[in-house]
Amino acid sequence: MAAINRYRLSLRELQFVLFEQLKLNELLGKPPFDAWGEEEALSVLKQTARYAQEVLGPLSGSGDREGCRLEGGKVQAPKGFKDAWKGLYEAGFKTLGIPVDEGGQGAPRALSSVVEEILAGANTAFAMYPGLSAGAAETIAHFGTPEQKQRYLEPMYSGRFSGTMCLTEAEAGSDVGACRTRATKNPDGTYSISGGKMFITAGDHDLAENVVHLVLARVDGAPAGTKGLSLFIVPKIRVRADGSLGEPNDVQVARLEEKMGLHGSATCQLAFGDDGKCLGELVGTQENLGMPQMFKLMNFARLLVGLQGVAIASSAYLNALEYARERKQGPDFKRFKDPSAPKVTIVQHADVRRMLLDMKARVEGIRAMILTLAAHHDRALALAGQDDAKAAYHQGQVELLTPLVKSYSSDQAFQICATAIQVLGGAGYTADHPIDQYLRDSKVFSIYEGTNHIQAMDLVGRKLGLAGGAHLKSFLTDIATFVARHQNHPALGEAVGSLARAQEAVAGSAKTFLGWSQSPEKAELIPANANRFLDMMSELTVGWLLLDQAVIAGEAAAKLGAEHPDQAFYAGKKYAALYFARNVLPTVADKARLVAGEDRSAIEVPDAALG
Amino acid sequence: MAAINRYRLSLRELQFVLFEQLKLNELLGKPPFDAWGEEEALSVLKQTARYAQEVLGPLSGSGDREGCRLEGGKVQAPKGFKDAWKGLYEAGFKTLGIPVDEGGQGAPRALSSVVEEILAGANTAFAMYPGLSAGAAETIAHFGTPEQKQRYLEPMYSGRFSGTMCLTEAEAGSDVGACRTRATKNPDGTYSISGGKMFITAGDHDLAENVVHLVLARVDGAPAGTKGLSLFIVPKIRVRADGSLGEPNDVQVARLEEKMGLHGSATCQLAFGDDGKCLGELVGTQENLGMPQMFKLMNFARLLVGLQGVAIASSAYLNALEYARERKQGPDFKRFKDPSAPKVTIVQHADVRRMLLDMKARVEGIRAMILTLAAHHDRALALAGQDDAKAAYHQGQVELLTPLVKSYSSDQAFQICATAIQVLGGAGYTADHPIDQYLRDSKVFSIYEGTNHIQAMDLVGRKLGLAGGAHLKSFLTDIATFVARHQNHPALGEAVGSLARAQEAVAGSAKTFLGWSQSPEKAELIPANANRFLDMMSELTVGWLLLDQAVIAGEAAAKLGAEHPDQAFYAGKKYAALYFARNVLPTVADKARLVAGEDRSAIEVPDAALG
Repeated sequence: MAAINRYRLSLRELQFVLFEQLKLNELLGKPPFDAWGEEEALSVLKQTARYAQEVLGPLSGSGDREGCRLEGGKVQAPKGFKDAWKGLYEAGFKTLGIPVDEGGQGAPRALSSVVEEILAGANTAFAMYPGLSAGAAETIAHFGTPEQKQRYLEPMYSGRFSGTMCLTEAEAGSDVGACRTRATKNPDGTYSISGGKMFITAGDHDLAENVVHLVLARVDGAPAGTKGLSLFIVPKIRVRADGSLGEPNDVQVARLEEKMGLHGSATCQLAFGDDGKCLGELVGTQENLGMPQMFKLMNFARLLVGLQGVAIASSAYLNALEYARERKQGPDFKRFKDPSAPKVTIVQHADVRRMLLDMKARVEGIRAMILTLAAHHDRALALAGQDDAKAAYHQGQVELLTPLVKSYSSDQAFQICATAIQVLGGAGYTADHPIDQYLRDSKVFSIYEGTNHIQAMDLVGRKLGLAGGAHLKSFLTDIATFVARHQNHPALGEAVGSLARAQEAVAGSAKTFLGWSQSPEKAELIPANANRFLDMMSELTVGWLLLDQAVIAGEAAAKLGAEHPDQAFYAGKKYAALYFARNVLPTVADKARLVAGEDRSAIEVPDAALG
Repeated sequence: MAAINRYRLSLRELQFVLFEQLKLNELLGKPPFDAWGEEEALSVLKQTARYAQEVLGPLSGSGDREGCRLEGGKVQAPKGFKDAWKGLYEAGFKTLGIPVDEGGQGAPRALSSVVEEILAGANTAFAMYPGLSAGAAETIAHFGTPEQKQRYLEPMYSGRFSGTMCLTEAEAGSDVGACRTRATKNPDGTYSISGGKMFITAGDHDLAENVVHLVLARVDGAPAGTKGLSLFIVPKIRVRADGSLGEPNDVQVARLEEKMGLHGSATCQLAFGDDGKCLGELVGTQENLGMPQMFKLMNFARLLVGLQGVAIASSAYLNALEYARERKQGPDFKRFKDPSAPKVTIVQHADVRRMLLDMKARVEGIRAMILTLAAHHDRALALAGQDDAKAAYHQGQVELLTPLVKSYSSDQAFQICATAIQVLGGAGYTADHPIDQYLRDSKVFSIYEGTNHIQAMDLVGRKLGLAGGAHLKSFLTDIATFVARHQNHPALGEAVGSLARAQEAVAGSAKTFLGWSQSPEKAELIPANANRFLDMMSELTVGWLLLDQAVIAGEAAAKLGAEHPDQAFYAGKKYAALYFARNVLPTVADKARLVAGEDRSAIEVPDAALG
């Protein structure tokens, strides 16, 4: 099969969120984003879109079919990935979001997030390699010694080296603290590393000259659990002080996983020190800081998973829409019994339109949620030192929204792909269209970077109570302010009322969780209901931001002539918001009633009764 | 990878539904099931389970990896399928449900359905071949001439020939009436067939000596639409009057589809008469009866899809349960901050238990719904001629439940597989476990044999109004009777109250649909809400049958000693029913409110506004 590009994106939509909704202009041209204006930002978006369409997109289907190969202990990525990697680094896409003082281009996170969405959407498996590499490099940039930064950062920023994050072990999955990989300090200050890691993304490949593993391990004698873990730089090939490559470092690929999707991404089991010759160096100078060092970047990693989700879901939606506009099947509903009635395109059938509008609303609302988080990050940075209270507010929203972004986007991406397949019917089940691959690729998003239940527990067990509950309070107040301002909106007022009821439901359930946390006999209701609450709060956020978009779109449309090409785009915003407000927002209060019901059946059912 | 059997089933559960809930004993030993007693039925279940575990199950994973191959115009099924096919027919599994006077064993459909579930669960792709073959044979048995029955049935019942149903064309998917395949009558009474069909399951393979295609085509000059379609017997190799094989019949495999799942099942594009030499014979003696002939068997075909769904979902659940009982990860919730706390199996974590109980309730409730449909069929047969009013009631429930069984089971199977993957975490995303394959295999169930929207339209557009609404009325009355009888049940009374509210919600929404059907400006709300109503009615049915099981289990448990091994099984019934009543049944009324909201956003959104 010839390489075809099946990635679809809407630059108009991306611009709308960045500039019309999030008002990125307010930040551009000022510290720390001095170097950036609207023109530069738009140019980067267009460049990225071109690279995605021309280079990455055509390699997505072929990479899925070909997969990675493990030969002679080395992993080969699919054909074309090596050149794409080279081009990606040459174009500078991966240093966009890195601060200027760390050697990057210092773009706002809202902008670099859109770039990451486009890269991930065009070729999710490929984008995993530079994605993990960037995470590893940033960890070294934050916590490494000057000498480590000197030795590793430039090669990693330029794509000569890649990087990994090695946390998971066979017996330590979600329970990271059960880590058994050991580090033994040598007289020269290096550490001998021994142990096995699994599910290591980009664990080995032929795209870069070297792979810099960041390995979580326990130094001999360190405390049990997460508090005794340290982080080590363990290159596949040793790097001399002058930066040149030395001997291989006793890191073996024990296995290449066979997965449902992301076939082009090398998911490896790695063995460190099987021959006793694996050397690592501690990140920074102090032991037992592995977890906080890892966690520092966790927010960003989780944002990236959210972006992967919306990236795939968006292209699935746009592919389904394209198909629905071309495929003729059956007559119009009003003439369905008349065999002489002309066939219509399926976009005209009510159920297909329902599926399309459902996908559109979810995709656009989730993207707005993700980029809102990114914009909070940017505003926190811009305000730091100038208005610390406001900066703290923005950083608080980053904390609060991160688990929603990671979980809701990943769960919904999978569901949106399933809906897109349904729009295509039998054709959607075949490899003739990309959605089969999208669905397979997206399933793991709900699992990696902390399962969605871990996210939900982070939300209800930690984030709701942060700063004495201030972040949640600000979030609820922001929505209440929106409600007060727009409840009498002529076209949207009723929908805003639905938002208000959802806001009250979330506020009520948050209090219920607080009550449970203070009652030992009810504490187990927290994990039993955490995912439900995360969904409620996500739907509230998505519904709010869709209505916000609809208000903005309505105002913008009123200023344009009736024939302006943007009228259709802005009208779409109204319908997406109305659809979501009428079909999804009411379920928030419904779920709150289930929370209040305090069902204990899953807690009480005896093991043996399960089957 | 060595062939391993990963199919899991619970014979105890299957027995419970058949004998304790559906009281199959009342039918056994009497016409038309004279030949069957409980012992024979149990023996068949055990035999089927053994064949599934020993022969079919081990070929499921290998068949998925190997797939089918198209070589020299012929399709080869995966290794081992040919022997499995032979064994299946030798054991007589495929003639179980065929009436005695048609050459079968005349087992009740409830029993043959369980057999089909086991076959489909052990190896879904394999079971497609005999499944379609049985459908084709039954069509000939019902509508063929005596000479056709004589020539085709015995070879098809014995597995020497297989069969297909050829409806779909590239330009006629869900819109069957757009069929372009032509049939031209020849002077000798045969018809020359020309045209192409696609998505033909088991369209070609090497399991049988011949493939008997049943092809929907339009005789020259016949009316447009579905009313002008006729059904033809078109064997791959011509069959002489004495039953021996003659010349090839100009049926070519134009393509073998590359699909997301069901890799072991050969989905073909077929070209009939490219060389002008394809001969078919009309099924029966009258033209233009193709659609009613196809539809006669549609109920059974849709039941089979429902069975495929529950078959896969059940094994996905039992695999996840097995994993959750073995996999240790993290400490108990109450000691989660203590690194010295012992690790526990994940079945002890509240969120995992929630997922497991959710899957269990859905799987067992859906199976109960499907087998209830089958039992209605059996009772309609048993009562025909004796008590025609009662027989009509049972047949009416078959009609009403068929779209629910096909759609809800298929949609839920996919979701249950996704939940099962989540229980396993990263491991669930790999080919080390069967659930990745289950998820890929199951996605098409919501599409074929009439998409789930077609089912929903069949329900709201046809089945609700059949017999002046009598079937729906009986259905609602049955539930009301159950509510009246058990609303004060000590353990289940509250849950029965939830059932009552769901019943009222379904009754109310049914009236809303009736109103819409009488108002031209509201008619389009029907397709826009049909799937939602189908879900509501399915959840009502599942909730009811789970509570019915819980009542029966409670009574049975009370008669047993506290240490009896069945106590845990019966306790499971109570928790499944309570879980569903508290977490799913309330959403039925929630959905009814959305129906009542008459949202028109998806109907009104302009095409151009979609993106």
